[in-house]
Amino acid sequence: MDGERVRDISEFDLIQRLDQSLPDRARVSPKLHLAIGDDCAVAGVTPGEMVVVTTDTLNDGVHFRLEWTTWENLGHKAVAVNLSDLAAMGAVPLLLTVSLALTGDELVCDLEQMYIGMGKLAASHQAVIAGGDITRSIGTFSMAITAIGETHSKRLLRRDEAQPNELIWVTGTIGAAAAGLELEKLPDSDPRKRAATAIGLRNALHCPDPRVKAGRVLASLGVRCAMDLSDGLAGDLSRILAASNVDAEISLPDLPIAAAVQALFRDDARDLALHGGEDYELLFTAPPSFSHQLREGFELIGIRASVIGQIRARAGDRPLLVGVEAHGLRHEIEPRGFDHFRPH
Amino acid sequence: MDGERVRDISEFDLIQRLDQSLPDRARVSPKLHLAIGDDCAVAGVTPGEMVVVTTDTLNDGVHFRLEWTTWENLGHKAVAVNLSDLAAMGAVPLLLTVSLALTGDELVCDLEQMYIGMGKLAASHQAVIAGGDITRSIGTFSMAITAIGETHSKRLLRRDEAQPNELIWVTGTIGAAAAGLELEKLPDSDPRKRAATAIGLRNALHCPDPRVKAGRVLASLGVRCAMDLSDGLAGDLSRILAASNVDAEISLPDLPIAAAVQALFRDDARDLALHGGEDYELLFTAPPSFSHQLREGFELIGIRASVIGQIRARAGDRPLLVGVEAHGLRHEIEPRGFDHFRPH
Repeated sequence: MDGERVRDISEFDLIQRLDQSLPDRARVSPKLHLAIGDDCAVAGVTPGEMVVVTTDTLNDGVHFRLEWTTWENLGHKAVAVNLSDLAAMGAVPLLLTVSLALTGDELVCDLEQMYIGMGKLAASHQAVIAGGDITRSIGTFSMAITAIGETHSKRLLRRDEAQPNELIWVTGTIGAAAAGLELEKLPDSDPRKRAATAIGLRNALHCPDPRVKAGRVLASLGVRCAMDLSDGLAGDLSRILAASNVDAEISLPDLPIAAAVQALFRDDARDLALHGGEDYELLFTAPPSFSHQLREGFELIGIRASVIGQIRARAGDRPLLVGVEAHGLRHEIEPRGFDHFRPH
Repeated sequence: MDGERVRDISEFDLIQRLDQSLPDRARVSPKLHLAIGDDCAVAGVTPGEMVVVTTDTLNDGVHFRLEWTTWENLGHKAVAVNLSDLAAMGAVPLLLTVSLALTGDELVCDLEQMYIGMGKLAASHQAVIAGGDITRSIGTFSMAITAIGETHSKRLLRRDEAQPNELIWVTGTIGAAAAGLELEKLPDSDPRKRAATAIGLRNALHCPDPRVKAGRVLASLGVRCAMDLSDGLAGDLSRILAASNVDAEISLPDLPIAAAVQALFRDDARDLALHGGEDYELLFTAPPSFSHQLREGFELIGIRASVIGQIRARAGDRPLLVGVEAHGLRHEIEPRGFDHFRPH
């Protein structure tokens, strides 16, 4: 049984087995009307709410390497990156659909593990895996996930709403996922890799926890501008600056760099925090008068949030992001992030 | 400019150019709150309606061949197969998201043509292309589209609601897409291929028109059971029989086989109609008392609909689909359809 591959069983059987791998809480919900097995999934929306839709694809060899991650973690991550986009809008997740492009060589039990990972994370955020499709791929294995949530239109967290003088915040810590990626490239025997495994640094890369609750805190407190960190702080913050037509200053000593990153990558820690991707933390801006309530809200949900800088009025033609050192030295930070088709 | 490839420009520029290729009506709608450029798309839902979600992936070399279709038609078809699933639920389309996995070799102008095809069809059904993502593919070009619509929960068209004695209907004609596929395999000089081009048979394969209006007619008249024909009449009807726990009898002389298919594929016409896929017509069942209103409704929207058989009570353990010849001879029809990982 365990050696069974996708090409050995029918598409129908595969769909059944994947569906059955999901925990019940990831298959049924009071809001889900119709799921896997019909032409579409159908779900209720709270009257007056809007639907929020995002889609993210992971391709084997580009976004993950099967030799670096487990199938269960891969399922977790594929769901996490999509829920992170919903979190960045302040939305409540409802359901996800999964499109698998399979070569036929995949072991069915591996895909079942992947669905277990998807289902666990979805269920922990009250979302269900509501269907999808399976196609044959001539190239490599890939999956495209679409996540749908709901939110009130007056509570949207957008990229183009940052205002001068607002403080710039970031949840959690940054740099750990990029550090995790560097560590994966080392041989297993390297003591830094062993240490990183022990302290969970590799988990940051493979098992990010989407900040759904944090997004809801922001939306409920009236924050207007947020996005999730997928391509690195410098690149992502520059997108907010461009969309909102403002500049920004960040205090480099205040960056919440993960302690393990500082310990293992002393010289490169700041670079990993500024330019490394996949942290899936929330980056947001809010007026200084919001700070007290924000700190209370984050304390309630047990998530760290740090002020790292301030939005400034736009000075020139293009967005300017300035980093300020402890001793006051200021320098421009390159908005370099991750670009799929260019060397970086 | 025209020779520019995806790898020559930034991801940001590519997104801008694809977005600008869309006709305005496919980019903005009163219901769309936020689109391409933020973490998610956001759209309004009519209060009391449910969201309907479907996803379909097209992979180069599996679902299409670039030497057989134009990029504009490819965009059309990718949107059509998804809108067809919404049609099969009786839903009103709202928006689509597009995930492109690109090798980097694609010409930007080809992708722009594809977006033109997507946008035209979406706009003709009052839907918008509301975002998506672009990733790098190590294998071949593929795209996963998700379509979102809305409908009232009491008006859902499901697969598991066929009742004994209901008549079985199909919209339009069948077999033309499968015939079109056969014709693509012939050399361009073959007179049958030239004839088929002249009479639009190849269009049935490359430019199916999703039956969105027909689906709304069915939902509004209280029809309960429908699906779209993607894998062939025999296979798809068998899915309804399995889901609804019933059998069926179809009258073979009543199959609405496209006239061009009968002319060009005399001996194989019925086989193409029964087992060929991609017709994207609607297959539905309704009590005989609905027939008059259904005929009126379809006349209003200018779409043909034919009664092809009747649902029977389940006789044995598995669904039985019987074909009846003009002279009364009855034989079982194999529920063979399209299966991505098996020879067919």
